Amino acid sequence: MNANHDFLPHVAPTADAALVARLQHRLDRKTKPLGSLGRLESLALQVGLVQRSQSPRLNAPQLVVYAGDHGLAAQGVSAYPSEVTWQMVENFLAGGAAVSVLARQHGIAVTVVDAGVAHDFAPRAGLQLRKVAPGTRDASRGPAMSAAQCEAALRAGMASVRELPGGVLLLGEMGIANTSSASLLMARLCGLPVADCVGRGTGLDDQALARKRDVLERTLQVNEAAREPLAALAALGGFEIAMMVGATLQAAHERRVVVVDGFITTAAVLVACALAPAVLDYCVFAHCSGERGHRALLQHLGAAPLLDLQLRLGEGSGAALAWPLLVSAVRLLEEMASFESAGVADRGPR
Amino acid sequence: MNANHDFLPHVAPTADAALVARLQHRLDRKTKPLGSLGRLESLALQVGLVQRSQSPRLNAPQLVVYAGDHGLAAQGVSAYPSEVTWQMVENFLAGGAAVSVLARQHGIAVTVVDAGVAHDFAPRAGLQLRKVAPGTRDASRGPAMSAAQCEAALRAGMASVRELPGGVLLLGEMGIANTSSASLLMARLCGLPVADCVGRGTGLDDQALARKRDVLERTLQVNEAAREPLAALAALGGFEIAMMVGATLQAAHERRVVVVDGFITTAAVLVACALAPAVLDYCVFAHCSGERGHRALLQHLGAAPLLDLQLRLGEGSGAALAWPLLVSAVRLLEEMASFESAGVADRGPR
Repeated sequence: MNANHDFLPHVAPTADAALVARLQHRLDRKTKPLGSLGRLESLALQVGLVQRSQSPRLNAPQLVVYAGDHGLAAQGVSAYPSEVTWQMVENFLAGGAAVSVLARQHGIAVTVVDAGVAHDFAPRAGLQLRKVAPGTRDASRGPAMSAAQCEAALRAGMASVRELPGGVLLLGEMGIANTSSASLLMARLCGLPVADCVGRGTGLDDQALARKRDVLERTLQVNEAAREPLAALAALGGFEIAMMVGATLQAAHERRVVVVDGFITTAAVLVACALAPAVLDYCVFAHCSGERGHRALLQHLGAAPLLDLQLRLGEGSGAALAWPLLVSAVRLLEEMASFESAGVADRGPR
Repeated sequence: MNANHDFLPHVAPTADAALVARLQHRLDRKTKPLGSLGRLESLALQVGLVQRSQSPRLNAPQLVVYAGDHGLAAQGVSAYPSEVTWQMVENFLAGGAAVSVLARQHGIAVTVVDAGVAHDFAPRAGLQLRKVAPGTRDASRGPAMSAAQCEAALRAGMASVRELPGGVLLLGEMGIANTSSASLLMARLCGLPVADCVGRGTGLDDQALARKRDVLERTLQVNEAAREPLAALAALGGFEIAMMVGATLQAAHERRVVVVDGFITTAAVLVACALAPAVLDYCVFAHCSGERGHRALLQHLGAAPLLDLQLRLGEGSGAALAWPLLVSAVRLLEEMASFESAGVADRGPR
């Protein structure tokens, strides 16, 4: 595969020591002990840096569920049949899925992107039709997609973000067998044994988990040559994962905050990070999921997730659950009184 | 002290195997892999059990900040002067404190209770005047309160809840030096060394922390005889802590959900639990704070906190931050589609 990355957007680091100092001073004058808002203070700093502002704002949050099917599902690596992918897309659009409920609770707009589902959807509001193909090829027999398909998926992911308003992208995904794809990318790009990267997905028993591990070992051998990030993405990824890579790069390029969900979206960020390390400056890791491998993947990225609720659902559900914490961080920075404005005694010189 | 508990409300366990089965069946038919909502599923079950309902509802959440001063503050155990207690009460009422911002974000009503602040407040909306005395006595020289004062504080806490609408009580507190009181109660009732129970509070340096530890050791010796829960509460507690004990018992008696905040509110629950172990059935532990001792105290109670964000602010701020997770749990139970209603294929027989 030609490792031509020229079409990918540039991502600049957010580092700005002077702005950090101004934001920290604002936080330190609030009516609270120094540092006592913990992770919310670092969140407020991060959002301020992304937006290059002392008064960051989080308007019009956009959660996008990228959906795609996987040829590898034919190898029996999931507890559910492939048609669940399109059925769940219909469920998202009808408002009945977990992520639909959570997005409604928090006023988050939901868009579904058909990245490559093996089903023809009728066009409608809230659905972007960007199908590269009706599912990837079976990666246990050769690359899941061609280099051209991979580039098309990356470009479609970039385009999906350009269409959306607001300054925040919450990543979500749906695709039967896509924990396999995420495990493969993790094993290849982190250089870890498959056993450390594979989990029960939607609920495999011990026997099925052992089979999944064997299939993934074989798949990595078959795709032995695919070692560079884009080559690995094409060989082992899914269309929804490749689109999330493009979406993450585009969102960071536009200085949007990216809220990362569970294992599969984190695997997409792993690929994006290999292409442009500064994307991590833009990423808020919503949670550590119950899927084996996610904790190690987060550690590999040096990421500290906000929640740890043993979720293993995907869809962007964890991102939606963490969203009010981001809002809190920004509102505390903006709305809390200072020692001066409230007439509260500070602790005095230190 | 007379260990007469007769005035305390009865708390019944929530256990109901048939209701658990019905709630779990509802969850299991939702369009998601079994158990994939993790902690949110156990939360939904807990709220259902508290409300004895398959369709629990969380209406009109009430956050109460119990405020009181501590004679022990004269021993230099806090980084802030005692007048910060009343100044922060004014800040809560003016809407400028962290908990004010968070409650506004989530539509949570805030009430402040003057449990025993060394200041006279003008009556106004959102403030309950229930002062037992203008601060406790210095516990390093003898019991912080008399048995009669302790009973009065417990009764006032019970009354504070009876006045409030809704089915949820979120606990908050304010009181300079009250991490000391919480550490003392933890050491005495858990039988742990002071060193395991004491932390930096609002931000002590190493030297001040060592002095705080010495003061607490001495205070425990002076109050050596106070070993039963109510005696320990009177000797080592604060008025705000005693009122939270009464409030927790009353809320559980009325089958309200109790959302527990940080180290000090957890210490109040420790006392309540010693008086009526079933209160734990009603408690949702919002977070593990950055205050040393809180994690061990939660473990002692067998409590699994929802958040772990290194908060160390008190006020009920962690309870307010966790609140949307409770709402999510109940909304997912109520609003998610089932496999049948959404036309999604289940994984089939297991």
